[in-house]
Amino acid sequence: MMVEWGDCDPAGIVYYPRYFEFFDANTNSLLADALGMQKPDILRRFKVAGWPMVDCQAKFATPISFGQQVTIATDVVRIGRSSITLSHRVTSRSGALAVEGNDTRVWIGRDENDPSKIHSIPIPCEVTQRLGAKSPGEVS
Amino acid sequence: MMVEWGDCDPAGIVYYPRYFEFFDANTNSLLADALGMQKPDILRRFKVAGWPMVDCQAKFATPISFGQQVTIATDVVRIGRSSITLSHRVTSRSGALAVEGNDTRVWIGRDENDPSKIHSIPIPCEVTQRLGAKSPGEVS
Amino acid sequence: MMVEWGDCDPAGIVYYPRYFEFFDANTNSLLADALGMQKPDILRRFKVAGWPMVDCQAKFATPISFGQQVTIATDVVRIGRSSITLSHRVTSRSGALAVEGNDTRVWIGRDENDPSKIHSIPIPCEVTQRLGAKSPGEVS
Amino acid sequence: MMVEWGDCDPAGIVYYPRYFEFFDANTNSLLADALGMQKPDILRRFKVAGWPMVDCQAKFATPISFGQQVTIATDVVRIGRSSITLSHRVTSRSGALAVEGNDTRVWIGRDENDPSKIHSIPIPCEVTQRLGAKSPGEVS
Repeated sequence: MMVEWGDCDPAGIVYYPRYFEFFDANTNSLLADALGMQKPDILRRFKVAGWPMVDCQAKFATPISFGQQVTIATDVVRIGRSSITLSHRVTSRSGALAVEGNDTRVWIGRDENDPSKIHSIPIPCEVTQRLGAKSPGEVS
Repeated sequence: MMVEWGDCDPAGIVYYPRYFEFFDANTNSLLADALGMQKPDILRRFKVAGWPMVDCQAKFATPISFGQQVTIATDVVRIGRSSITLSHRVTSRSGALAVEGNDTRVWIGRDENDPSKIHSIPIPCEVTQRLGAKSPGEVS
Repeated sequence: MMVEWGDCDPAGIVYYPRYFEFFDANTNSLLADALGMQKPDILRRFKVAGWPMVDCQAKFATPISFGQQVTIATDVVRIGRSSITLSHRVTSRSGALAVEGNDTRVWIGRDENDPSKIHSIPIPCEVTQRLGAKSPGEVS
Repeated sequence: MMVEWGDCDPAGIVYYPRYFEFFDANTNSLLADALGMQKPDILRRFKVAGWPMVDCQAKFATPISFGQQVTIATDVVRIGRSSITLSHRVTSRSGALAVEGNDTRVWIGRDENDPSKIHSIPIPCEVTQRLGAKSPGEVS
C-alpha cells in the first residue's frame, strides 16, 4: 500500500496512530480471508460482537514518509480459548523493517440478558481451524 | 480549541477532513446543550437512530497551523420537518475567518420491521423548540 | 476499495469526514498517474508547496456500511490558471450512487522571502496538459 | 474530555487507535505546559525536529463508549539523554481504569548536511529540568 498525505504529520512521516489503523484493517482482512466472508457476515454468522484489542505494542525503527510504498504483513502468532495474538511487520520497498507490532484481541459476545454488556466467549473451532492454528490454547 | 499536531498534514496545516470532524463534534455538543443530555441519551430518549449528513459544503479562506488556537462557532440556521441546517465558522485568535461551512442533516429512525433500514422521521417538537427554532419548516 | 471497520461510526456507516480523506487520496493518485511520479516528487519537480482545498461540497445519498465494496471515481472538471476543480463519485457494488462531491484546489508556492507564507502560483503547462485539460482557464 | 461519536467504531466504543492520538496530544500539552510555549515554538526555540515515537504499548481494560467523560493523565516516567518515557492512564467518570499506556519518544534533529535525514540529539538541560526530572539518565 502507499502511505497517503493524510496519514502523515507535519514532520512528513506517518502519524504513528495510523499504523494501528493499518494493523486493524489487516487483522480484519486476515479473518475475512480465512473465513471467506467480510466482517459484518462474520459477526452475524458466529454471533460474535467483535474482537476488541486488549493489549498492544509497537516498535518504530524507521520513519516512513508520504508517497512511500510499504508492505504490511500480519500473522497469527497464537490462538487461545478466546484470544488471538497477532504480529505485524511494516517494511519499506527496500525491505527494511519500519515498524513491528504485536497485539492480543479477545473474541466477545453480548450478554443475553443485557445486550449492552459484553464478555469474552470461546472462539469457535471452525474459526480456530481456519486461522491455521494447531489447537486452541496451543502456541503455534 | 487548539489545533493538534495530529490534525495537521505534511504542509503543517490542518488536514481539511479534520474540520468536518470538528463540525460534527460541535453539532453533537449543540444538540447535547439544547437537550440537556449527551448523544447516547438523546438516541434512546427520542428513539432516533442519528442525524446523518445529507449535504455539506465548506470554504477554506486561511490555513491554520498546528499549535494555533481557533474558535469554532456552530449555529442552527434552519429546522425543517426532519432536517436541520447548521453553519460553522472557524476563526483564528486574531478573529480572522479561516473556514466557513454549512451542512444539512436528517433526523432518522430505524424501520420497525427491518431495523437494518433507516428512513427520515419528523423531528420531535421538543427538540425543535429547544433548538430555538420558531416552528418546524420555518426558515429562521 | 473496501470500507474498513475503522472508517465507520457507531451507526455502522462511513463517518462522513472519511469520504474527504478518500477524495484527497484519489486526487493525489490522479495527479501521480498523470505526472508519472508520486506527490513528494511532484512537490520537488514543480516547486509546488501543495494543492490545498479552497472550496468543497458533497451530497450523501446512501449510507455505506463497513465491509462494503465501493468504487470512487475522481475526475478533473476544470483547470484554471492556478486552480483545479474535481468531481468524485462513490458508488456501491450495485452501481448505486452513494456520495457525490465537487471541490476546488489551488496550486500554491512558498514566498521566496518568507517561506512561511504561501500564495497561489500558475499551474505549469506540463501539468495542465497531462491532466488532460484543453487549455488553462477553459471549462472542459 | 468527552469521547466523541467520531472517535468510536461500529461497536459504539472508542476505536483503539484514537487513544494514541489522545496520548500524543497529551504529551504535546505536557511539554507545552512545562516549557511555556506551544509545539511550533518549541521546535524553533530548541532546534528540535520533533519527538517521534520509538516504542509504545497499551492495555485496554474497559471499553469506553461515545458520550462518556474520561480523564487522561499523562506523566513523565523517565528522561534519558535523548529519550523521554511517558505513562498515560485513561479513567472513566467512576474512576475505573480504562486504558493504561507507556511509550518512549526520542528527541531528534535534522542533519546539518542533509536536512532530509534525522537523528537523535541530546535533550537540552532546560527541557529536562522543566520536565521535572532529577537528572538526565536517572530513573524517576
